[in-house]
This record gives sequence, structure tokens and C-alpha cells, in this order.
Amino acid sequence: MQLSALLHPRSIAIIGASTQEGSVGWTLAKNVIEEFPGKSYPINPKATELFGIPCFPSVLSVEGEIDLALIAVPAALVSGVLKECGEKHIPAAVIISAGFKETGEAGKALENELLRIAEEHAITLLGPNCLGFLAPHEHLNASFAKSLPSAGPIAFFSQSGALLTALLDMSSDALGYRACISTGNKAQIKENDLIKFFAQDEETRVISFYSEDLSDAKGIIETGRSLLKRASPKPVIALKSGKTAAGTTASSSHTGALAGSDAAYEALFKQAGIIRVDGLLELTETLEVFSKNPLPAGKRVALLTNAGGLGVMATDACVEQGLELAHLTSETIETLHSFLPAAANSQNPVDVLGDAKADRYERALTTLLSDENVDMLVVIITPQAMTEALKTAEAIMSARDRFPQKPIVVSLSGGEALAEARNFLAHHSIAVLRSPESSARTCGLLSAVARLREDTGTTSFDFTDIDVEKARDILNRSRANGHLQLFEADCIEFLSVYGFRFFSSQAVASREDALAAARKINKTVALKIISPDIVHKSDAGGVSLDVDPDQADFAYDALMSTVAERAPNARLEGALVVEMAHPGGRELILGLKQEPGLGTLIMIGLGGIFVEVFKDASFRFAESLTREDAQMMLRELKSSPLIEGARGQAGLDQVTLIDALGRLARIAQDFPEIVELDINPLLAFQHGADFRTLDARIRIEA
Amino acid sequence: MQLSALLHPRSIAIIGASTQEGSVGWTLAKNVIEEFPGKSYPINPKATELFGIPCFPSVLSVEGEIDLALIAVPAALVSGVLKECGEKHIPAAVIISAGFKETGEAGKALENELLRIAEEHAITLLGPNCLGFLAPHEHLNASFAKSLPSAGPIAFFSQSGALLTALLDMSSDALGYRACISTGNKAQIKENDLIKFFAQDEETRVISFYSEDLSDAKGIIETGRSLLKRASPKPVIALKSGKTAAGTTASSSHTGALAGSDAAYEALFKQAGIIRVDGLLELTETLEVFSKNPLPAGKRVALLTNAGGLGVMATDACVEQGLELAHLTSETIETLHSFLPAAANSQNPVDVLGDAKADRYERALTTLLSDENVDMLVVIITPQAMTEALKTAEAIMSARDRFPQKPIVVSLSGGEALAEARNFLAHHSIAVLRSPESSARTCGLLSAVARLREDTGTTSFDFTDIDVEKARDILNRSRANGHLQLFEADCIEFLSVYGFRFFSSQAVASREDALAAARKINKTVALKIISPDIVHKSDAGGVSLDVDPDQADFAYDALMSTVAERAPNARLEGALVVEMAHPGGRELILGLKQEPGLGTLIMIGLGGIFVEVFKDASFRFAESLTREDAQMMLRELKSSPLIEGARGQAGLDQVTLIDALGRLARIAQDFPEIVELDINPLLAFQHGADFRTLDARIRIEA
Repeated sequence: MQLSALLHPRSIAIIGASTQEGSVGWTLAKNVIEEFPGKSYPINPKATELFGIPCFPSVLSVEGEIDLALIAVPAALVSGVLKECGEKHIPAAVIISAGFKETGEAGKALENELLRIAEEHAITLLGPNCLGFLAPHEHLNASFAKSLPSAGPIAFFSQSGALLTALLDMSSDALGYRACISTGNKAQIKENDLIKFFAQDEETRVISFYSEDLSDAKGIIETGRSLLKRASPKPVIALKSGKTAAGTTASSSHTGALAGSDAAYEALFKQAGIIRVDGLLELTETLEVFSKNPLPAGKRVALLTNAGGLGVMATDACVEQGLELAHLTSETIETLHSFLPAAANSQNPVDVLGDAKADRYERALTTLLSDENVDMLVVIITPQAMTEALKTAEAIMSARDRFPQKPIVVSLSGGEALAEARNFLAHHSIAVLRSPESSARTCGLLSAVARLREDTGTTSFDFTDIDVEKARDILNRSRANGHLQLFEADCIEFLSVYGFRFFSSQAVASREDALAAARKINKTVALKIISPDIVHKSDAGGVSLDVDPDQADFAYDALMSTVAERAPNARLEGALVVEMAHPGGRELILGLKQEPGLGTLIMIGLGGIFVEVFKDASFRFAESLTREDAQMMLRELKSSPLIEGARGQAGLDQVTLIDALGRLARIAQDFPEIVELDINPLLAFQHGADFRTLDARIRIEA
Repeated sequence: MQLSALLHPRSIAIIGASTQEGSVGWTLAKNVIEEFPGKSYPINPKATELFGIPCFPSVLSVEGEIDLALIAVPAALVSGVLKECGEKHIPAAVIISAGFKETGEAGKALENELLRIAEEHAITLLGPNCLGFLAPHEHLNASFAKSLPSAGPIAFFSQSGALLTALLDMSSDALGYRACISTGNKAQIKENDLIKFFAQDEETRVISFYSEDLSDAKGIIETGRSLLKRASPKPVIALKSGKTAAGTTASSSHTGALAGSDAAYEALFKQAGIIRVDGLLELTETLEVFSKNPLPAGKRVALLTNAGGLGVMATDACVEQGLELAHLTSETIETLHSFLPAAANSQNPVDVLGDAKADRYERALTTLLSDENVDMLVVIITPQAMTEALKTAEAIMSARDRFPQKPIVVSLSGGEALAEARNFLAHHSIAVLRSPESSARTCGLLSAVARLREDTGTTSFDFTDIDVEKARDILNRSRANGHLQLFEADCIEFLSVYGFRFFSSQAVASREDALAAARKINKTVALKIISPDIVHKSDAGGVSLDVDPDQADFAYDALMSTVAERAPNARLEGALVVEMAHPGGRELILGLKQEPGLGTLIMIGLGGIFVEVFKDASFRFAESLTREDAQMMLRELKSSPLIEGARGQAGLDQVTLIDALGRLARIAQDFPEIVELDINPLLAFQHGADFRTLDARIRIEA
């Protein structure tokens, strides 16, 4: 992929450049020709000239080299035109035309044809069905959007052209971009390609995107982590819609039912260290704060206000965001005390009072930013009678210049009276928001990067005790017999290969063998029916509990006759004799589920009401699971106090739980043909060695 | 209280009117004199004239009647001036001067003196330490805020002057006010007085306030409920800071520990049917939407957008707010289908596509508003190349005029390109917000009023089986004996009077009596030590469980010697012989706690991890508790599925639980001297008759 040819071209062909004012082809040609300093070649067989430069009938009739083709012709003509681009050795193309995958099967076939042509000719392809892109530093508006935004450090890409247009209009002068890219149908160039490209681009300081669907969780996680783990991390901010939509497919498994459509994306963003925002307005606020500030060293925030009430509200919001109100040093407090009026508050949140002029703000700013306990600063200005908003803004600018390593967010709670100050700050690259709450929220996100860095580890699992071939045989045998839902005995055998321990058990097919097996176990046992036709054993009377080993033969007979009566048509193949669980311990549910196009999700939750009533479960992608991910899965459960130990009760052995998650992830990686897997329950105790799997279901694809 | 004289005066004295430009007294006089059409009397013994009208040395030297005195003189002079107002029979005064309660004890005494004078002379008193008030309809700026806001239907009052100023500046032309009042120290006029006043004012359609502390929960709840229950309810919107601040006093009780400082306010607002917002920006958005729309008939929202992605985000936000996406009638869908392009979405959220001009919006608007399944409408406009924002705004205005009964919120996601449309809508009283998310949030609040109306009931509890005098005797006896923490036997006796059932029990002081008591109970019993010196009985070995009735004498001896050994200095007065709980049932915790100035909070939660680990408890004020409140207390618990029945298990008898909460509230009303009361646990079963109180602690004030 040659994204550099696409985004930094020296010459551009506009194929479908139109003489019809207001049309897409006309706007596109106008946008490129009027501003782009490189060579422009409008391509239109019916025109001779456009915006003062000559038109060409096709790219093949252009003599010079062409780096980039912008294509805005009817869908049916695109593949022909793209072939010509290939012949002309144009390395990159943007297909703006619509009428492809988004229109149905025929359009999808047409789009696949485009991709084939692009690959054949090594053309890097953006779109189709997109708005184009804008690269302010290159003075290039390769889109039909109205105008170029300011140049700046933000690289933004959007699956929705409309959202991109809205963002550009909302950005006004406050947000500056390295590039704005409409990704459209993403036939070839996808989000991860762009993230990787801008990761290498030194001018880009913030990467952000809007998506409706993503693919290749593993790739995105890899890229995201490498960005996060760099000496100076480059934050990635994502807006993803469709949070509450119902899952795409109904599912019979617990894991499937719990993983709503959004669980996969939540897991993806967490694992990749990508910051997720909730809406377009929050996106602009977050971009504003991230593009104008360094990342803070920690999460300790100082608040400076001329309105006590707003200081308290900002405190609330900071605490809710997981920030800490900085404990000011006694030196700071003394200094503040020395020049603030008696009624002012020298503690954090620092209230300089409603009559504070710029000088009082200025001294407080310097004092707070000098404090080693302060990682970042929120300055709240309300328009009181004495307020000198513009002069205060100037003071903030000097303070920022003196303390460039500490983020500053200014909350201007007012309208007209603060407009001048707002403009001044915007033009001096200082983040200004409209409320203390959003200031606190974005500061929370700033400090989240540090937390993500800390939480995101790369310690991989390494299991040497797994016989993958043996596991493969079990699945193959089951599939060969037409059993896509594995028998219990096969589940046990399969999971045992991966180190999941079960209570001792043996499959038997006669009363004599049942007795022998039970005596061998030599503890109280349970008997469970084996039948290819019975999924829910208890309902069919197929489970017998608390059986004395010496009575196992009688119990076997009773079990067989009960099931035969309740399920007369079921084929009965014998019974499983299982050691009974000793009392105590806590039930957990583990599982995995395929997310088509993305990867395989693994899940853990506490059994019983926690998962079933409170839907308390956590998810991660198996393909990229690290030990730290597994640790976070446990920690983010609402019921985690029960895992960690609460109310004087000892917790569970977490090392073994983390190990179990690693093994589950390994299963997912070794066998993508496993569509669903539920381990329910896993019985966990304080000591890892006692962990036992009680029941499991595995379904493989045909 | 004569709030009408205060807010609609015909003549005003400005006491402390100053000739010093820029001072508070100067600004105040200027603000009144330049705009107020009634009579103005600046009072200043050292000046003869101000802003072209004569000054008076004191109100006593004014000949005409004065309705209102604005006082802005140094704190020490205020009481003298106020007395003169009394002599002059001025019915209302605003004390703008600071230097009272907010400065400490001396100031508080001074403020009490003001209140005494006001009461003696029947002066209605706003402040002290406030900004004054603004009444746009009266052309009266009785404050030192810069200028009058637009006139409109919002009555707003604020404990913080700075917040009021900020709100006024943020309001620009978009928000119109009936009155803006700075309440200051609230020596006399409090929030509830103002709510009641504006409840009666026909021009006021929305009441809103900012508070840092409130008093008299019962009064506020009464007012709020009556507003909510009117044929056409008048919404009350509150902003209250200090949500996450630590509770004011450490507490040894469960109820106390769980009731953070904010639990009381959450309960208050819920019980009063007051809508709570989270910050200043959310307040302005909510005021915008409430002041420009009727209340919707239901919670079914239609979304209309020219950007699919924002439609999906708005859908997410609506669902998160508890709104329903309206199921459009087939007629609506057909009509939409008839004029929308093929690629458009005729289902809700309706996507008219990026190239929609005003006419397409117009037809879609009318179609959606005609649909009987649509209660309210969110219109999203993004600035695309073809978008006719202003013409679309005009179409929205006509649609609003045709369908005035359905709320419309317009989300303009853009900047400059939509500015004209924004102004047009603001000037035609149509609510415009900046994002789909905030549009959804405010629509959620609009529909919350309907839900609050439904949930808020007035069915009172009426108990005829309570012998209050007997209960009083128990408390008096305990207090007389110096036991502010009641003995267990007294707790049992007291709670029994209020209908809480215990397992059979008897206090005994010898082994023989223990045996006799156990035989009388004739079931397995427990023995618990009785000692004024032991609070935590189990720790001292003072509880013996599972005692066979025939062994009770031996158990008594063993108990006594164990405790004597472990707590050698404790006075031992015998033991309580108690019937043992039969197994099963669910433990609940009930409690009450005083909230000084507000009232008494009662609490309920599920015992064990739910209250202790997950802090899952709900609260209401006892003084105003209705059956519907008690029902909501159960419903809003996160663990409510366990009360209602989940996973095939039967739920608990809710009628009896509601009854128990009613009885607890009655205790709180009968005995405000009970500082803390914990019932922990109450053992509840499927059948109400089995409910049993297992343990309780009661503490009374000295």
C-alpha cells in the first residue's frame, strides 16, 4: 500500500471533472485546481478546458506522470477507468463514485472487481462511495467538501462522509488537521492501514476515526498497543456508533447471549488502548484537548475558578472521571494564601472569588502550575462584573508557555462576555471548552492514556503442555460422526488436553462397569446420561446425584429406565460416572464466541445471578490476549470484589484464573472452527489447584 | 411572605445608591433607574442626585409609598437601615450586602438579627449576600448583573451569584426568563417559597434552581408533587453540586455509611418529582428544550436525519435515556417511501440522505408528526453540500405550528454553515442543541416528567395497630437509664410495637429460666448474652446457636463462662433465648438516618454483598413516604430482580416489604429523637407472613 502517494501526491488526475456547476465532478475539480500547488489534470472527453487549465479525454492522453487519480464517474464506468489508471501506472486512486457494496449483491461484485484491478496494478485504493480526503498541509482538498480546514496535528478518518462534513464545519478555527479522510466502503484501505500510516507521520500528534464497523481486531490491537507503548505515546480516539443495537444473530450459548453487538468493540478498544468517545460533540472536545496539550504525568488535577459553585461541580465531575483532586503542597497553599483575599479558598478547588481580575488569576496560575503535586489544570472563568476575560486569557497563555509540560483546559462558562477570550485562546492553541463537566471529562481521557499504558501489558501466555494434534483428532472425530455439538465426554477430553481439570469421571455402558468405575473413584459420585439426542440432561431425568459408589449399579439401572421413559426416542449410549464436587467454592462461567470479521471473543463472569441477572461479564479478543488483559478482565467485573475477596472472605486464586483465560484464548487461536464454547460452571476455590470444570459445551462449524 | 411585592414592585428604594462609578451601589442604581418604569428612589445621605433623579438621605424622607428596598450598604449598617424600612412599612427588601452567615459566628448573629427585624416588621426578605434579582417582564434589573435577559417562561433562582451571571451570559437570546433570582444566604426566602410562588404564576412554564444545600424536604416534596400532579404539570429542574463530597459525619451504622452526602438529595428530587441535571451546560440545554416545548404524551421518539451515522448515534443515546424509538405506522412508512430516494431509510431513524434539500425534510417532518405513534421528534441537520439549512429551519417552524402538541428538538451538528438556521430557530422559539446526544438526553428528561407523574403516587400509609405511648415509654425508660444505644430486648420490644415480627424470645437470668424458656419455645434455639457493655456479641463469644431446647441450661452456663472469660469487665445480665430461623429466605437491611435540616432518610437494601460490597441501597424521606415511594425503593435497587424473582426462583412478598417501609417511616415521624436505626437483617420469604426481624440497633439522642 502506498499511502504516501495517495496523501502527498505531486500530480493529480480528476476523472469525471465536470463543467456542470455544482455537480460533484465540478466541485471536486474546482477544489483541487484552485488550491493544489502541484499538477492537476481534469479528465473529461467532452470538455477542452476547466477552471483555466486543459482537459484530457483520458489519463492515457496525459503526458506527465500522475501520482493520484480521483474518480467521480458513474459506477458502471469506474472499472474501465481504473484499468486505464493501471495502464498509466498511477499508484493511488480515490473512488468517490457510489453504487457499489452499499447497494446490494450486484454492487458488491462490482466492488470486488475494482479491488481485483487495484491489486493487479498495485493501485492503492480509497473508497469507493466516499467524499475523498483533505490534506491542509498540502493545500489539497481532494473531496467535494466545501473548504479546507486549518492545518494541525489531527489525522481523522470517517466511514461516514456526512459526519466528516459535520466535524469540519464544527471545527472552525479551533481544530487543525493533518488529514481528513472519508473511507467510504473501505474496499482496500481500512482504518488500521491509516492508523499505521499516521503512526509514522511525525507531524501527526493525534489519530482519530469514526467507524460503523471494523475488521481485524488483532491488527488494530497490535497497532494500538505499539502506539501506546512508545516513549511518547500517540493517542488514538475512536467514535463508534451502534452501541445499543441488538446483536446480529440470536445465540443459544451464554457467551453469545451476553456479548451484545457492542461488547466486541468495547473489548477491542480496551485491548488496543484506544480511547472511545460517545458522540460527535464529545469527539470535538476531546480532539480540542488532545491536540493542544501534552499528556499529563499523572491524574492529579488542580481546579482554579472565580465561581465556587462551578468549582464544586468540576470537583464532582473530576472524581466521577477517576481523577484525583491534587493535594497542594503547604508551600503552594501558603503562597496562595498570601495574595488571595481572606474569603477566597486556597485549597483545591482554588476559588479566587468573583471579583478576581487577571492579575489574581495570573499569580494563582503560576503558583498551581509550579506545584509538583499538580499534573494538570482546569481554569474556570465565569463573566462577573470585575472579570477581565481577555487579560486572563493572556495570562493563561504565558503560564502555558512557562509550563508547557502540564495540560491546561479552560472552561469558559458564559457567552458573549467571554467571546473575545475564547477566540484568543483558540488562536493560541489553548483548549477551551464550554463547561466544567466537559473539561473534567476530557482531562479524565487525557489521564486515561497514562492508565492505559500502565494496564496494557505484553506478557504473552506460553503453554508447553498442550497436545494440539490430540485435540484436533477429537474435533475431527466428532465432525466425522456428524456431531457439531460435542458430546460431554468429548468436551471433557478436549478441554483436558488444554489443561482444564475435571472431577474424575468415566464413561460406562453397563451396570457392572458403572459399579467398577464408581469404586475406582472411591468417592460419592454422580451419574449423567450419555445420549446424542439429549442436550439438557437434567430435564430428561438424566442426572443422578449423591450416589454411594457401592450403589452405582442400581443407580445406573434407575437412570436408564427413567430416561427411557421420559425420552423414549432418544438413543442411550450409557452414562458418565463423575466424582461429586465437594461443597464450597465459587462458580464461574467462561466462554468464547466468534465475531465474524473481527476475531474470537473470550468471556468470563461469575456464575449464578451475576452473569444471568446482572449481565456482569468481561470480554477480550483471544488472538491478542496478554496476561495483563486477563488480569483486567477479572478486575473490571462488577463482582470482582468477590474474586479479590470481600467481607472477610478469602478471594479466589487469580493466577490460576488468568491461566485458565490464557488456555481458553489458546483454544480459540488453535481452532477457529469452534463457533461457541461455554464452560459453565468452572468451580473455583481459594487455592488454584482445586479448580474444577463441572460442565462444558462446544459447538464447531460444519 | 409577600413575594409579589418583591417581584412586582411599583416603587423601589435603592439604599446605598452610590456616585462612585463601577461600584455595586452605582451599578445597582443605574440598572434600576435606567430601565424600571415605576418610581425609583436612590437613598444616599451624601448625594443630591443620581442618574438625573433626586437622592434621599433615608427611606423615611421619601414621601410616596415604597414597595421594595434594595440594600447595598456595609454589613454593620444593614440592620439599622432595615429597621427604617420597617418604620416606612416597606413590605419587601433585598439585602445585597455580604458579611453575614458566610463569614462565621458573628456574621451569623448579625443575620439572625436581620431576620428578627424582618419578621417584626413583616418584611419579605431576599438575601443577604446576593446579587439581587432580574424580572424582564417588569423591565427591572434589581441586581448588579450587567443586563436584563430576554423575557420568557423560565423562573430561575440560584444560591450562587456567579452561576447566575454565567447562566445569563450563556442564555444570549435563546433562553427567556420570567425571573432570575439570586437567593444568597437564604435567611428568609428559600427555594420552596419561590417554587410555590412561581407555581401560581401563570406566565411561568418552567421552574429551575441551583442549590448547594436545601432544607425542609417535606415541604419541597409536597410542592413538587402538587406541581407534578396538576392537569398540566409545571416541570421543576434542579442543579445541585457536591455529589461526590464525603459525608459530613462519620457514622457507625450501616444506613449512615451507605447514605453518602448525595443520597439525601437524590431521594428528595425523586420524591418531589424534580428533574435533576448534572451541570451548567446540561441545565441550559434542558431549559432550552423545556421552555420551548409542550410535554410529550409518551416516550416514543422519531429521528429524522440527513446523516445516517448521527441517526445511529442518536438511536443509541435515546435507548440509553430510556426512550423508545417510535414504531412508525405502515402508512407513514409508505408515505415516506413514496417520496424519499431508494437509498434513503423510511424506517425510524429516518435518513433522508445527505443530498436532502428543504422540501424533502418538509415532507418527512409532516409525515412523521402526523404519525400517532410518534410522541416527539428529533431533527438532525448536518451541513452537506446540498443542505438548505435556513429553508429547512423554516420548514421546521411551519411543522411546529401545525403540530404544536408534539415536542421538536433540532440538533444542528455543524458550525458556521448552520449559524443562520440556528438564529432563525432560536428566534422562533424552537429548541436547538449542538449534538444528537444532548437532544436525546433532553428528550429523555421531557418524557421523564410523564414517567414521574405515573410513578409518583399519594397513597399514604395508615396504621391503626401502633401503640405510640408504649413505644415512647420504652425510649424514655432507656434514656432515663442512660442507654442511648438501646438494649437488644428494648429494640425488640420497641420494633414489636410497630409491627415488626421477631422470632420468639425471652430474656432469662438463670440456667433454670433458660431451660424453661427454651422448652416453652419448643424449637431449636439460640442464646445471646445480655450486657450493657457488649455491643458486638459474637466477638465476645456471646452467641450460641443450634441449641436443643432440653440442653438450654447447659448452654446457658457455657455462654456465661465464655463471655466472662473473654470480656472480664463486662456486666452480664443474663441471656436472650431466641427461636432459631428456619433455613432459606433472603436477608434485607432496613434503616433510618437523620439528615439535619432536611428530614429523616429511610433505607432498604439486600443484605450481604449487595449492600456491603455493591453499596446497593435505596433511600427516601420518611416524612413524605407514600406506598408508591416504597414500591419505587424496591424497584430501583440493582438487586431488585432478586426481590421480584429471577432465575426461576420465586420473589419476595413485596406487599409486606412495602408495609415494613411504611412502618419504618412511621417510626421516623413519631420519634425524631431516633438518630439511627438499623434492622439488620430482616429475613424475608416468599410469603409475607414469615418475615422476621433478626437483629436491630437503635440509637437515640441525649
